[in-house]
Amino acid sequence: MKAFQDHYPENLAHCYGCGRLNTHGHQIKTHWDGEETVTHFTPESYHTAVPGFTYGGLIASLIDCHSTGTAAAAMYRAQGREMDTLPPFRFVTGSLKVDFLKPTPLAATLEIRGRVKEIKGRKVIVETTVLAGGVATVRGEVVAVQMPENFGA
Amino acid sequence: MKAFQDHYPENLAHCYGCGRLNTHGHQIKTHWDGEETVTHFTPESYHTAVPGFTYGGLIASLIDCHSTGTAAAAMYRAQGREMDTLPPFRFVTGSLKVDFLKPTPLAATLEIRGRVKEIKGRKVIVETTVLAGGVATVRGEVVAVQMPENFGA
Repeated sequence: MKAFQDHYPENLAHCYGCGRLNTHGHQIKTHWDGEETVTHFTPESYHTAVPGFTYGGLIASLIDCHSTGTAAAAMYRAQGREMDTLPPFRFVTGSLKVDFLKPTPLAATLEIRGRVKEIKGRKVIVETTVLAGGVATVRGEVVAVQMPENFGA
Repeated sequence: MKAFQDHYPENLAHCYGCGRLNTHGHQIKTHWDGEETVTHFTPESYHTAVPGFTYGGLIASLIDCHSTGTAAAAMYRAQGREMDTLPPFRFVTGSLKVDFLKPTPLAATLEIRGRVKEIKGRKVIVETTVLAGGVATVRGEVVAVQMPENFGA
């Protein structure tokens, strides 16, 4: 099954966190799991904070891209559209909040789970939790904003 | 002049964002500039979000490590101690909040500026701004917490 990110239009598929065309990047893949969204990601050995634990900046990055992907998928779902229909929805991050609940071991594949809290106009608020070995270690909230047509102009 | 990160004890110098011993990492270097702290960082061409703009997860990472470094330096300064005196202060991130004010161009060397908002017991709150070409594009706030002796135990 294609991941959310496999549907991103080519010009928007270069993101370091989630772009399938960024060969240096993380290339995360997110899917629906019922009402939640899920990404699995295995950090590299050098993605370390204090030795033995996962770098917080990487975790923030995973939360960010997982959440913007979730926002896009949720908007398609809310409109009863498949993700490969046009026009494409693509979201950027308005704000990112990350609470580090406890250290995240580096050994494990991380599970990143998202839940849509609210869809309001062009904004989607996503709550995302990072779990290591089934234990929630980090909680994030992203306000994702539908990318304006004139982004960066 | 040595940067804050050059004073981190060896076992705490492996962080992907700021550890001088992490050869894969960003190895950021932060210094005092009066009452503020400053880091300069040039993203790689592949640190892209939408083409032409800097990846938000990288920016969050820079804010994170810049702010924990600032927290440590501020605690030494508050106690009238040099950063190479013992025992070492080292901070971890309790929470990280990032507001993306506008897209951050990828072409430029970024300037990351921190300001200590509050020192309260073992916590230091740092407000950090990211500037590209002199324009503030991202604002962050980090609650940094002095690393417990039993971190990760």
